[in-house]
Amino acid sequence: MTDRSIRWDSTVLAGRGSQMYSLIERLYPLCRSITGPGTEATLAALQETIPLTIERVPTGTQVFDWIVPRVWKIRDAYLKDPSGRRVIDFHESNLHVMGYSRPVHAQLSLDELKQHLFTLPEHPDWIPYRTSYYTDNWGLCAAHGLVSALPEGTYEVCVDAVLEDGDLVYGDYLHPGASKEEVLFSTHICHPSLCNDNLSGIALTLMLATLISNVKTRYSYRFLFIPGTIGSIAWLSRVGERARAVKHGLVVTCVGDAGPFRYKRSRRGNAEIDRVVEHVLAHSGKKHHVYDFSPYGYDERQYCSPGLNLAVGSLTRSSHGQYPQYHTSADDLNLVSAQNLQESLATYLQVIATLEKNRVYLNTSPFCEPQLGRRGLYDDIGARPDPDAFRMALLWVLNLSDGAHSLLDIAEKSKLGIDLISDAADSLKDADLLREQQCAP
Amino acid sequence: MTDRSIRWDSTVLAGRGSQMYSLIERLYPLCRSITGPGTEATLAALQETIPLTIERVPTGTQVFDWIVPRVWKIRDAYLKDPSGRRVIDFHESNLHVMGYSRPVHAQLSLDELKQHLFTLPEHPDWIPYRTSYYTDNWGLCAAHGLVSALPEGTYEVCVDAVLEDGDLVYGDYLHPGASKEEVLFSTHICHPSLCNDNLSGIALTLMLATLISNVKTRYSYRFLFIPGTIGSIAWLSRVGERARAVKHGLVVTCVGDAGPFRYKRSRRGNAEIDRVVEHVLAHSGKKHHVYDFSPYGYDERQYCSPGLNLAVGSLTRSSHGQYPQYHTSADDLNLVSAQNLQESLATYLQVIATLEKNRVYLNTSPFCEPQLGRRGLYDDIGARPDPDAFRMALLWVLNLSDGAHSLLDIAEKSKLGIDLISDAADSLKDADLLREQQCAP
Amino acid sequence: MTDRSIRWDSTVLAGRGSQMYSLIERLYPLCRSITGPGTEATLAALQETIPLTIERVPTGTQVFDWIVPRVWKIRDAYLKDPSGRRVIDFHESNLHVMGYSRPVHAQLSLDELKQHLFTLPEHPDWIPYRTSYYTDNWGLCAAHGLVSALPEGTYEVCVDAVLEDGDLVYGDYLHPGASKEEVLFSTHICHPSLCNDNLSGIALTLMLATLISNVKTRYSYRFLFIPGTIGSIAWLSRVGERARAVKHGLVVTCVGDAGPFRYKRSRRGNAEIDRVVEHVLAHSGKKHHVYDFSPYGYDERQYCSPGLNLAVGSLTRSSHGQYPQYHTSADDLNLVSAQNLQESLATYLQVIATLEKNRVYLNTSPFCEPQLGRRGLYDDIGARPDPDAFRMALLWVLNLSDGAHSLLDIAEKSKLGIDLISDAADSLKDADLLREQQCAP
Repeated sequence: MTDRSIRWDSTVLAGRGSQMYSLIERLYPLCRSITGPGTEATLAALQETIPLTIERVPTGTQVFDWIVPRVWKIRDAYLKDPSGRRVIDFHESNLHVMGYSRPVHAQLSLDELKQHLFTLPEHPDWIPYRTSYYTDNWGLCAAHGLVSALPEGTYEVCVDAVLEDGDLVYGDYLHPGASKEEVLFSTHICHPSLCNDNLSGIALTLMLATLISNVKTRYSYRFLFIPGTIGSIAWLSRVGERARAVKHGLVVTCVGDAGPFRYKRSRRGNAEIDRVVEHVLAHSGKKHHVYDFSPYGYDERQYCSPGLNLAVGSLTRSSHGQYPQYHTSADDLNLVSAQNLQESLATYLQVIATLEKNRVYLNTSPFCEPQLGRRGLYDDIGARPDPDAFRMALLWVLNLSDGAHSLLDIAEKSKLGIDLISDAADSLKDADLLREQQCAP
Repeated sequence: MTDRSIRWDSTVLAGRGSQMYSLIERLYPLCRSITGPGTEATLAALQETIPLTIERVPTGTQVFDWIVPRVWKIRDAYLKDPSGRRVIDFHESNLHVMGYSRPVHAQLSLDELKQHLFTLPEHPDWIPYRTSYYTDNWGLCAAHGLVSALPEGTYEVCVDAVLEDGDLVYGDYLHPGASKEEVLFSTHICHPSLCNDNLSGIALTLMLATLISNVKTRYSYRFLFIPGTIGSIAWLSRVGERARAVKHGLVVTCVGDAGPFRYKRSRRGNAEIDRVVEHVLAHSGKKHHVYDFSPYGYDERQYCSPGLNLAVGSLTRSSHGQYPQYHTSADDLNLVSAQNLQESLATYLQVIATLEKNRVYLNTSPFCEPQLGRRGLYDDIGARPDPDAFRMALLWVLNLSDGAHSLLDIAEKSKLGIDLISDAADSLKDADLLREQQCAP
Repeated sequence: MTDRSIRWDSTVLAGRGSQMYSLIERLYPLCRSITGPGTEATLAALQETIPLTIERVPTGTQVFDWIVPRVWKIRDAYLKDPSGRRVIDFHESNLHVMGYSRPVHAQLSLDELKQHLFTLPEHPDWIPYRTSYYTDNWGLCAAHGLVSALPEGTYEVCVDAVLEDGDLVYGDYLHPGASKEEVLFSTHICHPSLCNDNLSGIALTLMLATLISNVKTRYSYRFLFIPGTIGSIAWLSRVGERARAVKHGLVVTCVGDAGPFRYKRSRRGNAEIDRVVEHVLAHSGKKHHVYDFSPYGYDERQYCSPGLNLAVGSLTRSSHGQYPQYHTSADDLNLVSAQNLQESLATYLQVIATLEKNRVYLNTSPFCEPQLGRRGLYDDIGARPDPDAFRMALLWVLNLSDGAHSLLDIAEKSKLGIDLISDAADSLKDADLLREQQCAP
């Protein structure tokens, strides 16, 4: 026997948006990358809230087709103009240095310099976010207005960084449920001072882990805080066949801005997680978009590679390339809000509640309709806010509980919401008119 | 060898609408319910036309999840106002008494009384039709205008009814065909003076039985005249696995009004009966509606319960809840007409003719086209009213008679009607270019 | 190992339209029919370009349900008016005599005559094209203006023809490829002085054969030049089960006029040839139409008969019955053009190139994405005219090369063209990230 479906009411949700926003404010200044002290400090901060396991993968480790890179530690970076003034200064924004820049300290002409300066001409006040993880290079990023006004002359450039052997780190938290089947929430932790992509994902994933850790669940829930690409590859490589325990999953990011929800389906296209998220969004009454899987984006690329093909989609608001501030200094604390985060949290919790509820039942009285009145179900109907809808929900659940339809199937066929259908199933279960279908182990 | 398709021409149809209307007039005054003398008298009247078998199921019999109730016999019911005048009188309309009212004879204040008076405020001249089969209650139904004008005072109320052990009765007529596979027509017989729902169904079902009894058919045809819900449950419970002989079926009711045809699909959704009815309606040139199955309505709820899942749909005109007169005294002899009944009959007969015709053939010359001219088929083509269409029908039947396509499939793919396709198949069969596919027994 | 995909660039195509048009001019005067000297002369002309095998099937041979007819040889035909003037003269147009007319030489009144004169009232200047292959008859065809002006009187009519035992002839050219699986191009050769239907088909099919004969191909290619209906039946009857080697095929005709392309699907409806042609047309940027199979038209009727059901469609421009000049003297050298023929050729070659390219690969590194940079693929990307599109093509091919998706499937899912997808597959194959899936022999 499993517990009744978990629900989170408005009391549980109150103030959660502000908590998530506060975490984003705290983590914003850290200079994260796919490795390094900023990333380790971020995981340490998360451990204050949940007992996250920190996994370490040494430099040089083969993870599928990849090699874990060296650790990048950045201390300072600047550009001094011919007059000796620091016109670009890492301590003003950690976006000023290209991620994984190799160390450099040199005097350069403006022309030589410009091959290593990155700007956004279309947004002259914003600093772009650039990385060069697997190509040996160095660079500074700055506002286009500033760079285009630089006079001719000799410049002093410095990137005070080291690249050395060490560990790739990621955080893993597992909440055990009644079943060993897992629901995965995966968020990347490799972006420096960028809020929507992806401090919002870190904050929401942590909040989900916190809330889930306090309830009894049907599924086990795994929360991964990983550097993008190399982190999910490292985790998948480590766990091997155990990755198949992931039955449903979502990649979490870009959940703090004001855009409508966007769901990118798993590679399977109609996996249960796909149908659940689409059902939740369809019944949200809010504008939203649904996209088929494509092999570009976040870590769903790895989870959905052809040898794995896990049922992992991605639920975001404005996602990569869909908002002008993406990968720029304008993806800052003003772009995300406590209110948006809270709305995203509520949507994710509804997805979880739906997964937990979505069972397959068998009508124990499948020949003709059972007599509802004799079992007090008409009284139950009468006590509901919408008796007609509840009666229809009872009839639909009875009619389709033939072992071939889940409650979500029934919700879709009946055009009634999963909550009403699940309530009806609970009443019918209490009246011994339903029993859960047990699949072979 | 089976006979050629049965056809009913306009000669056979002439006057049938009037005959059905006359039967409705005759049966209209009887006070039917799910049991009782009015229902028995109705079945007796039908036996004058066809040799209906009357089946009896005693009170207290368990039928699946249900118990056959006691028999309700109503003799009189009235309300006397403080002046002693009969303001509600069962002998004026048998709708005045709630079906299955328990006996009562009492003096009541207006307030006490009103808890047992049922009216239709939105239609102040109409008497509603109410029942309380499985809840111990009593009630009178009357025009809202009358009830709202009742003065304060003491009222004498009387329901002179008995509820006693006896038999639930239903009628069953089987026309044996070449095959033991059955086509079921089921109509309910439990409504008192209400014409569209469902004296029209009784009259049409009887007419179908009469016409079918005079022809040789491929299928066996079963006609059930049953009290709603409990009657179909009782029949299904009695016949057990033999219900599986029903390969196609329709619930017949609401076939006398002027509304467009409405077809509610079986739970299977694309059973042959569903495709046949939709084909007939699509080729009727008339406005019509098609709905997916839902577990609310008439006895298709029982036939389509998950343990049975019979291929039974329901073909009506305006159905329950779709016309204002539904379950009121306004569903009277003016709402239905001989013309509408006749049109419904023609549609049902076309459904039957299509079922009878819809066979699967094998092209006996499947490698390249056979030479039609050599077999006189071009002369056959030339003799047709539309030679081009007939030639196309021949080619389509030859091309798709591969064992995987029925004539209905071919009609749909070719966008030609089943009649033309069936004619072409007959010609090809005569030319030994087709043989019927025999399935394993 | 198979070769890289064949490609035909604009150099190969240059001037081909004019060559095809010249052939049409040369063949136009010959009086072709399903047998006879004009047909044999046509095949002899084609042999000057490709080593066509001429197959002979004697009169009286049973070919499936048909009997090969006698050979028709026409020498002269005329109508002399009462004044002795030749008003209809075979030597002015070989359409003047109905194909397979039996010989006649008689004096007839105008009334007697008119039963054997065929005209087109709606196009009074055009001569219709009529045949009577399997019914013993004679007839002359002429402009309606001329016939309606004929005065009363006695006419001399002459059809100087013989019908005698001989051979049905057709031409067959096979280009062997790496695989014994065949791609079939079939065109009919039985129409006299008619250009679009079907000298255009003869010219295009010959050009395809010429071009294919010069390249190494994956598939074998068969080119059939056959009299309509009886020719394809004779070929299919002769080859028997070997017809199953045809894995993809197109019936070629009506490819010289200015109409948009029209594709008639094979009976299978979604065979690879159907999907390939639809992909090519969809990416052509030109208006086109796609139709489901129907059992009327050209020799696809035979290839798609139910006992064969070969994957053969038909790619045309304006097809039978879709242009007013169809089967009239107005289907002449003015209706077709070198430019239209060249465009049709390019489309057919693109179909062939797509068939050749469309393979199923397996990602050799299916767990997570492989590291593209390490293998130089990012340099490859950077060198492309559209690097972003090429990178997406690489990712799509990697993601979907799971053994269940062909390159065409990937092109359709990604909405990228087959050329780009195939290029990406070639790069990945060079990087050892793909291997071709080998099916069991």
